[in-house]
Amino acid sequence: MEIAFFLYSGMTALDVIGPQEILCRLPGAIIRRVAKHTGPVKTDSGIELLAEYGFEQVPRADVLLVPGAGSATDMREEPDTLAWVRAVHATTTWTTSVCTGSLILGAAGILSGLKATTHWAARNRLQAYGAEPTCSRVVEAGKVVTAAGVSAGIDMALLLAAKLAGQMVAQGLQLAIEYDPAPPFDSGSPDKAPDAVVARVSTRLRASFQYPDAVPAATQ
Amino acid sequence: MEIAFFLYSGMTALDVIGPQEILCRLPGAIIRRVAKHTGPVKTDSGIELLAEYGFEQVPRADVLLVPGAGSATDMREEPDTLAWVRAVHATTTWTTSVCTGSLILGAAGILSGLKATTHWAARNRLQAYGAEPTCSRVVEAGKVVTAAGVSAGIDMALLLAAKLAGQMVAQGLQLAIEYDPAPPFDSGSPDKAPDAVVARVSTRLRASFQYPDAVPAATQ
Repeated sequence: MEIAFFLYSGMTALDVIGPQEILCRLPGAIIRRVAKHTGPVKTDSGIELLAEYGFEQVPRADVLLVPGAGSATDMREEPDTLAWVRAVHATTTWTTSVCTGSLILGAAGILSGLKATTHWAARNRLQAYGAEPTCSRVVEAGKVVTAAGVSAGIDMALLLAAKLAGQMVAQGLQLAIEYDPAPPFDSGSPDKAPDAVVARVSTRLRASFQYPDAVPAATQ
Repeated sequence: MEIAFFLYSGMTALDVIGPQEILCRLPGAIIRRVAKHTGPVKTDSGIELLAEYGFEQVPRADVLLVPGAGSATDMREEPDTLAWVRAVHATTTWTTSVCTGSLILGAAGILSGLKATTHWAARNRLQAYGAEPTCSRVVEAGKVVTAAGVSAGIDMALLLAAKLAGQMVAQGLQLAIEYDPAPPFDSGSPDKAPDAVVARVSTRLRASFQYPDAVPAATQ
């Protein structure tokens, strides 16, 4: 079972590392970190992740995961990336994204007519790709599974683990990474965080994403 | 504000990447990934993380984070590591660990007489270092903050963010990474997972950790 993680400059490290921590432990899993060219890839938190494979070396995968990016590193207009994502998607059992990775799937034409999600501050960008924006943390539409912002990749990976290896294996992996969340605040979504926090983060993310209309649903 | 992440061969990538995704975005944060020697460090999920600094280059830090390891990569018996951890701890505002990273703090003599936590399957190893094992997901004891297994580092980092930059900043970071957890199962701790899952994961982790007596509290 070949699982391809797409890496690109400016991506968010946790979008990949969260799911990888679960998926790499599935029976028979072979992880391939793939970028346009092999080599280190700088993420938006500064750490570099190594892409051991270039596009040409990985023409197919059982599972494809496309992470998001905290800034406007615009893979959505990069023809080679979109062509590779489309080609690999044609071979997958599951095509997945975390955070604004779904906008790359959208730009590749994969979300047309499908329910999908993305980071809350970018959710209204999905319509441009013919997708139906959905508020769920993880959205399944046929073989395409999209997750909400950054940390939602962990929840998505547990769902995938159950589909790929059964519920007991998925539960065991959740136990192994002791994923029994207890955040000190309940501010993880725009309808739960204080208004002042939502306003400030919206403004910052709008600037970062360069999406002038990325106002979260809760404040519209 | 200098934040030092200790990297070592066999460590768990998410123990560092989860907290880093939050802490690197604090105002004035300077992240330093530190290993005994500079260079790539292989984690237990196969991905390499780059240590840009060696021990000698980072003699102090405002925050130190020591991650855990999925296998018995025994930093607890590595004199240079323990000496560096001790020396940096003497300079910190906060000394922290994720998962079995607390056993390294323990071996360095830092947990003596303190409440602390670690991965559930290793919790009874804390007593050997004079610590008082505690079941909470995040345990604060003076300036030493220990987190439970792997994913608990995210919760700990949000707590630290509030202490370092205030609650609104921490809430904003939680919102930015959309940390509004919704795992598909409720199996993240041994008292919640099905007995058969706990038994299987216990056996596997005992072998991996090489802790013959690492039976979780819930099954003792």
